[in-house]
Amino acid sequence: MRHCIGIDVGGTTIKFGLFKEDGTLLAKWDIPTRTEGRKEKLYQDMADSVRAELAKHSMKVSDMIGIGVGIPGPVMPDGNIYALVNLGVYDLNLDKELPAYLDGVTVKAVNDANAAALGELWQGGGKGATSMALLTLGTGVGCGIIEEGKLIVGSYGMAGECGHIIVNPDEPVACNCGGHGCLEQYASATGIGRMGQKVLAESDAPSTLRRYEKLNAKNVLDAAKAGDALAIETVDRCMKYLGLAMAYISHVTDPQCFVIGGGVSKAGQYLLDVLDGHYRKYVNVQKAKAELRLATLGNDAGIYGAARLILGE
Amino acid sequence: MRHCIGIDVGGTTIKFGLFKEDGTLLAKWDIPTRTEGRKEKLYQDMADSVRAELAKHSMKVSDMIGIGVGIPGPVMPDGNIYALVNLGVYDLNLDKELPAYLDGVTVKAVNDANAAALGELWQGGGKGATSMALLTLGTGVGCGIIEEGKLIVGSYGMAGECGHIIVNPDEPVACNCGGHGCLEQYASATGIGRMGQKVLAESDAPSTLRRYEKLNAKNVLDAAKAGDALAIETVDRCMKYLGLAMAYISHVTDPQCFVIGGGVSKAGQYLLDVLDGHYRKYVNVQKAKAELRLATLGNDAGIYGAARLILGE
Repeated sequence: MRHCIGIDVGGTTIKFGLFKEDGTLLAKWDIPTRTEGRKEKLYQDMADSVRAELAKHSMKVSDMIGIGVGIPGPVMPDGNIYALVNLGVYDLNLDKELPAYLDGVTVKAVNDANAAALGELWQGGGKGATSMALLTLGTGVGCGIIEEGKLIVGSYGMAGECGHIIVNPDEPVACNCGGHGCLEQYASATGIGRMGQKVLAESDAPSTLRRYEKLNAKNVLDAAKAGDALAIETVDRCMKYLGLAMAYISHVTDPQCFVIGGGVSKAGQYLLDVLDGHYRKYVNVQKAKAELRLATLGNDAGIYGAARLILGE
Repeated sequence: MRHCIGIDVGGTTIKFGLFKEDGTLLAKWDIPTRTEGRKEKLYQDMADSVRAELAKHSMKVSDMIGIGVGIPGPVMPDGNIYALVNLGVYDLNLDKELPAYLDGVTVKAVNDANAAALGELWQGGGKGATSMALLTLGTGVGCGIIEEGKLIVGSYGMAGECGHIIVNPDEPVACNCGGHGCLEQYASATGIGRMGQKVLAESDAPSTLRRYEKLNAKNVLDAAKAGDALAIETVDRCMKYLGLAMAYISHVTDPQCFVIGGGVSKAGQYLLDVLDGHYRKYVNVQKAKAELRLATLGNDAGIYGAARLILGE
């Protein structure tokens, strides 16, 4: 059976996975992300790490079908990447440039949120589906959308940028992106913490949440599950916006299922139930409605998806 | 050069086009839609009309590459159609059933709004683009979305049902679909007329619109172009919602361009300019933003797109 490598480039670490083509993960490792503002540094570190690991398995780069790489920024359909802002590197094209460091191996780069979606479809929560949307609720809201087994990339590599769908144009507070009322302001971990503070400030009712000096999403979700009324109200308001955004996605691409991942999704079935109620309210024209599922690959979704990409979607 | 036929089945007429494979329309004709509740009647009428027209051109059904058919309802990926409500026929599969009436010719059915999008991409306002969204502003709001030259159909044939995207969850009046605040309630011809009445009722200001007993979209758009303040306000409110919905579409599939068609689009560049202003406000995370264009094929978009489908997207 043939092998391939999936890489997930993040702001602090680069994760690697060595896969068999049936999706078996043989080895997983990571290195710190160091660029010093030079993409060549990034390429060299990746190449050195791949060679060192393959040597342990008595394999060579030429034994690989190829290397898929998830990266934190938009990838144009031709592989061009204008900027990886968090890494401080600009004007990259991994498909064309990385092979020079790795014996001419085939390389394909993809946006990291899109990679995660492919990974969850292949070996995670979306297994068995052919069309899905992954929503990753972490510090921000990541999204990747798949139609008939293939990623929707978009004409400028910007498809699935659903964290910045405006779900509340009346929001006075600005999002990091400069917009007002982006989904990310409500459905990310940050957003849920912020909404909790807002709900507490609007009410005099007692709440177990009042004990926290700096409220986070986990505090809110745990308290909601334990029955705290203001925490329940917070989760409800946040999931209303997420349900609305999911309805938009359904009206546009009509996926078979939504897979919910990221730290917030650790709240599990409770969160899905609240979310499902809101989502269904907003898709009433759709006769068939998408199923909601939990992501299962956690932080490994990106390496799985990058590997899947190189094997052919 | 080879030939094919594109058919657009509507509630009152069935339109036909005989095409050369380079997109030249050789003949165009139509017949009344008669089903008497039986799909066989529909198939027979279509077959008779195709044969009669081909005879005039000394052609036979077997000379055709195939026949594409746009129909007013969702088409499942396997060609199943549960209902054509406006025609009173149920449980169809034109791909499988129509060939029996036409010497076994290849048939492919597609939702009519999706057909129109393919048509505009091939020979109309979207020419030269590879990814686009068509928004047809007529009695309702139709939509078809194309990514890398291919229609996004959706897992239940419901992709691109953007007329029922909820752009204003606070709307007290219900849409035909039962939802509240659907795009169709604002951006259709009906919706613009209704918004005009609302704007007039909310104000005591003079307006040339007050002369109309029953206001329609054309009255509003003509008055807005002529500088009537309340008509301008009406168009602005309606296009705000359309711009918001287009921003949702951009965040999901990132098209190169939006093509605006239907009766409302006869207002031309004036309408596009107002719309563009709103759209750009709501897509501020996108570095590259889609271009807005006018549809050019009018009521022929459906036959063009149905023909294109059979030639291979």
